[in-house]
Formats: sequence, structure tokens, C-alpha cells
Amino acid sequence: MIKVVILGAGNVATHLFKAFFASEEVTVVQWYNRHLKTIDLHKNKVAVTDDLSALKEADVYILAVSDDAIETLSEQLTFSNRLVVHTSGSTSLYAIEKKHNRGVFYPLQTFSKDTTVDFSAIPICVEALKKDDLKVLKKLAKAIGAHPHKVNTDQRQALHLAAVFVNNFSNQLYRIAHEITESQGVEFDILKPLIKETAAKIETISPYMAQTGPAKRNDKKTIKRHLKQLEKEEHQAIYTLLTQSIKNTHGH
Amino acid sequence: MIKVVILGAGNVATHLFKAFFASEEVTVVQWYNRHLKTIDLHKNKVAVTDDLSALKEADVYILAVSDDAIETLSEQLTFSNRLVVHTSGSTSLYAIEKKHNRGVFYPLQTFSKDTTVDFSAIPICVEALKKDDLKVLKKLAKAIGAHPHKVNTDQRQALHLAAVFVNNFSNQLYRIAHEITESQGVEFDILKPLIKETAAKIETISPYMAQTGPAKRNDKKTIKRHLKQLEKEEHQAIYTLLTQSIKNTHGH
Ligand SMILES: NC(=O)c1ccc[n+]([C@@H]2O[C@H](COP(=O)([O-])OP(=O)(O)OC[C@H]3O[C@@H](n4cnc5c(N)ncnc54)[C@H](OP(=O)(O)O)[C@@H]3O)[C@@H](O)[C@H]2O)c1
Ligand SMILES: NC(=O)c1ccc[n+]([C@@H]2O[C@H](COP(=O)([O-])OP(=O)(O)OC[C@H]3O[C@@H](n4cnc5c(N)ncnc54)[C@H](OP(=O)(O)O)[C@@H]3O)[C@@H](O)[C@H]2O)c1
Repeated sequence: MIKVVILGAGNVATHLFKAFFASEEVTVVQWYNRHLKTIDLHKNKVAVTDDLSALKEADVYILAVSDDAIETLSEQLTFSNRLVVHTSGSTSLYAIEKKHNRGVFYPLQTFSKDTTVDFSAIPICVEALKKDDLKVLKKLAKAIGAHPHKVNTDQRQALHLAAVFVNNFSNQLYRIAHEITESQGVEFDILKPLIKETAAKIETISPYMAQTGPAKRNDKKTIKRHLKQLEKEEHQAIYTLLTQSIKNTHGH
Repeated sequence: MIKVVILGAGNVATHLFKAFFASEEVTVVQWYNRHLKTIDLHKNKVAVTDDLSALKEADVYILAVSDDAIETLSEQLTFSNRLVVHTSGSTSLYAIEKKHNRGVFYPLQTFSKDTTVDFSAIPICVEALKKDDLKVLKKLAKAIGAHPHKVNTDQRQALHLAAVFVNNFSNQLYRIAHEITESQGVEFDILKPLIKETAAKIETISPYMAQTGPAKRNDKKTIKRHLKQLEKEEHQAIYTLLTQSIKNTHGH
């Protein structure tokens, strides 16, 4: 049984709490947040607190707080020599105060409060300075059905950056497509099977092999008409830049 | 039973042939291509030809050829007053010679030769000048399990443009992510669950609501570090432009 204390009550903390709570191999011995009211509704399931000096003993302390809060919060912890990890993709392991046994437990997924998360499909990047700590973190990931991946800091930060491209930026392209279809009174819904297929395709072939369309074909006529169709300068700039990027990749 | 002649032997023609062939409500009476050898291997299943003057009678002639070939090919057809459609998202219906009953049968999906296509999830945009022709095209779409959508030309062209954003451009972002992870020796595969979830998320919430990440939070520190991490100028430019686009959408 792995004993965990969760600190923070945002998207990641909340989804982790649910997953740990459902696991037979993990006990959440306590949940801390600086504002008690956010976690108060869970007090029948777990001990809650807003008092850092009242933290119980545990195998892992998970700082699922805003990147900027990791350093200060880790300093404020009154104990030492225990495993303390953050869940950030971009923050250094060394942001955690050195009196602790430091580590990272970064779930490579997008969490929103209103969507459910199935951890069984989720890779979790783990990092730790001590071998035994790494073992605990791997076990913790597996306990919720996730896949642990031992990475170094450069690799984790590369994954975080890549995640911005495939998640935030792709999603913004969906948003632009939404604006384009709406401007002609067509349902954005018609695009959903294509969006799904675009993501599904790269399960079996590389993005390089999966590419099609006017930019790859260097179809100047279509590209010119598309640019004329776009009303916003911002959308034209994105169209031009990504078209050029595809051309560069595919050797035009 | 709808009688169909397919013209062309590329990605779309090949996938349509398979779907029509499997349907009990459609007969492919003939398959034409200018080069016979591409379709010759199907001659035990369907009459093949490279002779335009030998085309048989049918309810629908589907020109699944390159956009630029639609006009000329439709002129070269020796008959008239029959339903002739193209499969292009961007080409005008009027590209088809006016001696024909003109229409469009545009499947909103990405076709590659090596991937299988399940038409049951695919929207097909249909257009025709005559009401009865529209009925035939809708019936044809349904015969292969697809969803027909009656659209006008502006709407079809908006969908085609939007498809470039969600398909070609998203796929190029996957490609860039592939380069970023490779440069640090991490498996691109680790990103696949996130890619899938990004596409799945917008089934239930809008792209606007689904957005997360440093650009939406206007997290200047992370944005700055990401730009420093990126080695290629092209990738930096894409990062900057899409970050700005997200900021504009979310009011920073
Ligand atoms: N969201 C994602 O998709 C995602 C994915 C992977 C990793 N992460 C990482 O996970 C961590 C948490 O992200 P999140 O999305 O869960 O954030 P979030 O929803 O914004 O929640 C942030 C939490 O941090 C707490 N907090 C902020 N400043 C604090 C301070 N100075 N002292 C104590 N607590 C403080 C907040 O407390 P209050 O409730 O009192 O405001 C809140 O509970 C971050 O490191 C993030 O990079 C996020
Ligand atoms: N690929 C997609 O994802 C997709 C999706 C929706 C709609 N479409 C549209 O569907 C149509 C076909 O696209 P595709 O991807 O199947 O193209 P493709 O794979 O490049 O195949 C093009 C076909 O057109 C034939 N062709 C080209 N020029 C011709 C000419 N002058 N005369 C007669 N035949 C000619 C080619 O004949 P040879 O075999 O002899 O070279 C080939 O069979 C296009 O209008 C496209 O915009 C494509």
C-alpha cells in the first residue's frame, strides 16, 4: 500500500485524487489545499487540511500546484528527507527544496475539470534522484493503471513542449475551423469524423507518411483560393506558415 | 439498385470502388482510368476500360480525378443529360461541362492508399442542380453507410478549407512534435494518447472550452522557455503565431 498526501486542488490534483481513491494499492492519507473550501466536500472520504504544519506521514507528497508555487510550497513543508514530487512538465526537479528527496510525477495528458480521465491510457513521466524513489513512483503510476516512463529533465521538457504543439495548438486549429464553418452557416460537427481520423491515422503510420492536401501537393491554385477565402489576417498568416512548413518537410 | 461508373483510379476512386462493391444497393457497372494497368487487377470484379467512347450507361458517373482534370474529362464524355459528379472539396460544380446533369459528391475524409476507410463515419457533401439528382446522390451516400449533407458551394469550400486546418495542419503539428521528441531521444509514441484525447475531447466540449496550456494562461515564463528550447526558426515562428492566436481567442 502506497501512502500519499496530495497538495493542491486544481485539475490535476482532483483527477489524481479520484484515481488514487479508486485504486486498491494506494491510500490518500491526507489532502491539503491553501483554501479548505475547495476540498471540504471530500472530507467524508479523506482527511482534509489547510494547515501545512499538520501534514501526516506518507510515502509520497504530491505537489499538484501551479508551477510557480512549487518552490515556495516545498520550502514551507516542515519535514525533510521524505519523497516530495511535483506534477509539472516544464519545471525543474531542483525547484523542490533540497531538504527533500526530490522527484517528478508528470502525467502527459490534458486535464479539465469537467471531463473524465481514464488513466489507463496515460503515460506518466517519472524522475527521481534516488533509485528507490523511482521505484515508488513507477509503482504509484501502475497502481492507477498508467504507464510510467523514466525520463530525464531535458526529455520531460521536450515532451511538454511537444505536447503544446499536439494539444494546445491542434486544438486552436479546431477552433479556427469552427470559426470558418460558422461563417458559412455549416455545422462544425461535420468535421468531427475527420478530426478523429486525423488523430487515429498516426497510430499506424508516421505523421510524415500521413500527410495529404494542397501544401504537400504544392497545389498553388488551391492554396491561393484558400488564402482568398480566409477573412482574418491572423488565419491567413497561420495558413501561410503551416503550408510553408509542410512544403519544407516534403521537399518543395 | 444504383448503377455507377467510376472514372479515375487514385485514393478516392479506389476507396469508393471498395465501398460500392461491398454495398448491396450499388453496382459498379464500369471502372475507367486513362492508364488501364492501375485498375487491371480488378477486372475479375468489374468491367474496366481506358476508352472514354466505350462507357456504359449508368445512373451516376463519378469523376474521382485530380481537380485540374475534372473540366477536360467532363468535356470528353461523349454522352449528355446524364448525372456526372466530381468528388472535389474545392472545385466548382460548374467545372463540369454543361451538357451533363451536374453534381458534387465530396467525402469529407482523408484518404491514403494504405489505410482502410470506414465510410459509416464519413460525411459526404452532396450538391446537384436538379432535385432528383440530389436524391440519387443522398441514396448513394447512404448505400455505403455514409451521412449525406446537402451543402451549397460556399459551404463546401468552407468545409474544405476548414479540413486543411484540422487535418493537414494538425498533422504537421504532429510532425513537428515528432522532430522535437526525436531530438531528445524520446519516443514519439508517448504522445499518442494525448493526441487521441485532444481529438476526443471536442466530441463533448467546444474547442474554445477545451483549451488549456501556457498560451491560454498567458504564462510568459513557460512561453519564453519553450521558444528557447526550439532549435528551428520555423518552429519558433509557428509557436509564436499560434500562441498569439490562442491569446487573441481567449482575450489576453
Ligand atoms: N492541467 C493540465 O492539463 C496539466 C497536465 C499535466 C501537468 N500539469 C501540471 O500540474 C500542476 C497543477 O496544474 P493544474 O492544471 O491542476 O492547476 P490548477 O487547476 O490551476 O490548480 C492549481 C492549484 O495550485 C494551488 N496553488 C496555486 N498557487 C499556490 C500557492 N502559492 N500555494 C499553494 N497552492 C497554490 C491552487 O490553489 P487554490 O485552489 O487555493 O487556488 C490550485 O489548487 C502544474 O504544475 C501543471 O503544470 C497540468
Ligand atoms: N485524397 C483525399 O483525401 C481526398 C478527399 C476528398 C476529396 N478528394 C478529391 O477527390 C479527387 C481525386 O483525389 P485523389 O486523392 O483520389 O487523387 P489521386 O490519388 O492523385 O488520383 C488522381 C486520379 O486522377 C487521374 N487523372 C489525373 N489527371 C487526369 C487526366 N488529365 N485525365 C484523366 N484522369 C486523370 C489519375 O490517373 P492516373 O492513375 O492515370 O494517374 C488518378 O487516377 C480530387 O478532386 C480530390 O480533390 C480527395
